[in-house]
Amino acid sequence: MDIGLERIAIPVDGDRICATVLTAAAKLPGVLFVHGWGGSQAQDLERAREAAGLGCVCLTFDLRGHEANAAQWETVNRDENLRDVLAAYDRLLAEPNVDPAAIAVVGISYGGYLAAILTTLRPVRWLALRSPALYADEGWTMPKRQLHEATDLHAYRRRAIDAAGNRALGACADFLGDALLVESEFDDTVPRQVIANYAAALSGARSLTSRRLPGADHALSHEAAQLAYRRMLISWLTEMIVGAREVAAQARLDALGPREPGHAAANDRH
Amino acid sequence: MDIGLERIAIPVDGDRICATVLTAAAKLPGVLFVHGWGGSQAQDLERAREAAGLGCVCLTFDLRGHEANAAQWETVNRDENLRDVLAAYDRLLAEPNVDPAAIAVVGISYGGYLAAILTTLRPVRWLALRSPALYADEGWTMPKRQLHEATDLHAYRRRAIDAAGNRALGACADFLGDALLVESEFDDTVPRQVIANYAAALSGARSLTSRRLPGADHALSHEAAQLAYRRMLISWLTEMIVGAREVAAQARLDALGPREPGHAAANDRH
Repeated sequence: MDIGLERIAIPVDGDRICATVLTAAAKLPGVLFVHGWGGSQAQDLERAREAAGLGCVCLTFDLRGHEANAAQWETVNRDENLRDVLAAYDRLLAEPNVDPAAIAVVGISYGGYLAAILTTLRPVRWLALRSPALYADEGWTMPKRQLHEATDLHAYRRRAIDAAGNRALGACADFLGDALLVESEFDDTVPRQVIANYAAALSGARSLTSRRLPGADHALSHEAAQLAYRRMLISWLTEMIVGAREVAAQARLDALGPREPGHAAANDRH
Repeated sequence: MDIGLERIAIPVDGDRICATVLTAAAKLPGVLFVHGWGGSQAQDLERAREAAGLGCVCLTFDLRGHEANAAQWETVNRDENLRDVLAAYDRLLAEPNVDPAAIAVVGISYGGYLAAILTTLRPVRWLALRSPALYADEGWTMPKRQLHEATDLHAYRRRAIDAAGNRALGACADFLGDALLVESEFDDTVPRQVIANYAAALSGARSLTSRRLPGADHALSHEAAQLAYRRMLISWLTEMIVGAREVAAQARLDALGPREPGHAAANDRH
C-alpha cells in the first residue's frame, strides 16, 4: 500500500516548472471471498465486482463439496475445505499485481469459520466475518455433514466459549489486523452467543467494526438485507483500503518537511 | 478502467476447484491539479493525497509566474500558462501506470479556466472546476496581470455570456465527460453569473454535479469551507472512479451469461 512521491521539473518553453507526482502503488490489495456451506462463488461475485471497483484484485471460488465437486458433499471435511481456502489464498497471491501485505478475507458462515482459521496460516490484514459459524475442534477430519449429527451443535453454539478452547476463536484472539463482524438479527443457525464469542476473541484486533443486520435471517433471504450487508462490507473495505493508502501518502508528505499552508488561492483576486 | 475477469481452476489434493479472478486494471486513473492565480501546488497536495488514496496517480505543479518562476508574475500570459498545463498533463500521462482514458483535471479559479480550455486540446474524462474564473478572449497573450486593468472584468463577469463567445465556455460546451462545478456562496471574485455561464455551457456533459459551499468566500478562508470542498471533491472523484471500475466489472460479469442468484448461503444451515 505504499505511495510514491516524486518532486520533478517539467520543461516548457525553455523554462522549468516544479511539480509533484503522488502515485498509488502499482500493487493492488487482494480480496479473497469464502462462501458458506451450501453456497457457491456465484453469491460472492456481486461483492467482488464492487471490491474490484475499489481497485482490488478479487478471488471467489467453490469449496470442495460444492458445484463441480458436489459429489464430495457428504464426505468433505473441514481439513480439506481449509486446504481449499489455502490454495485459493495462494492463487490470489500469485496474481502479478497483488500486494501481499494488503490481503482482505471475507467469509460467510462456514466460510467465516474457515477464514478465521486461515489467519493463523497466512498473513491477513483485513478480516470480514458475516455470521461466522462455530464448531467444536473435535472431529476435525469427520465429514462436515456429520458434524451436526455427531455433536450437539445447537447446544455448543449457545455456550460462551473461551478462545483457548476453539481453533477459530483462538485464531481470532491472535489476529492483529482489522476486523468486521456482521450478524443477522434473527439468526437461528448462528445465534447471538456465537457472535459474542467471536467479538470477545477479536479484542486484540487493531480495529473491530461490529454491525447487526436488522430484521435479517441467516441466509439474508430478503433483498434489503443483502443490500444492507453489501453496503456495510464495501463501506468497511473502502475505509480500510482507501484509509491505508492515505496514511501511506501522508507519511510521504510528512517526509517533505513542515506542512505548507492548505489555503487555496488565498491571494487569488482574479 | 478495464476490469479483468478470468475463470480458473485451482489444484488441491489432486482435485480442482473452480475460481474466478476479478482484477482492477493495472493502469490507474490520473488526476491533474491546476492551482489558481497567486496560488501554488502546495495547496493541492492535501487533495492529491486523498486522491492517491483512491488509487490514482496525481500531479500538482506551479504555474509560471509563481513560486520558482515568480519573476514572471508581471509578464506571464494565458497562452504560456496554458502551455504549462499542457506540459503538466503530458508529464502525467508519461507516468508508466497512468490510464490515458481515465484522466481527471481539477482546477481552481484561474486554474479552472485553464482546465476548461485544456479539454479541447487533450482527452479529459472528468473535469472539476471550483470557482472557475472567466476572461474575455481578447488580449490572449497580454500579461495576465494586466487583464483586469485593460478590460472591465467586473462587468464581464456579471453578464450572461454565450458559450460561442468565450473560449473556456466553448470548451465546456464541447465537453462530453463528467463535470463537477463548485461555487462559493459569497464570492466577490467569481460572482454567481460566471458559475451560471459555466453551468449552462456544461449542458452537454455526461453528468454535471453542481454544488455551493455555504458561507464560503472565493479563497475558502475558513477551514470549514476548505474541508467541505475537499469532501465534495473526493466524494465526486470516488463516485466517478469507483463507479467506472464497477461498470467495467459489471460488463465482464454480464458477458459470462445470465446472472446467477445473489443470495448468500441460502442453503446454509450449519
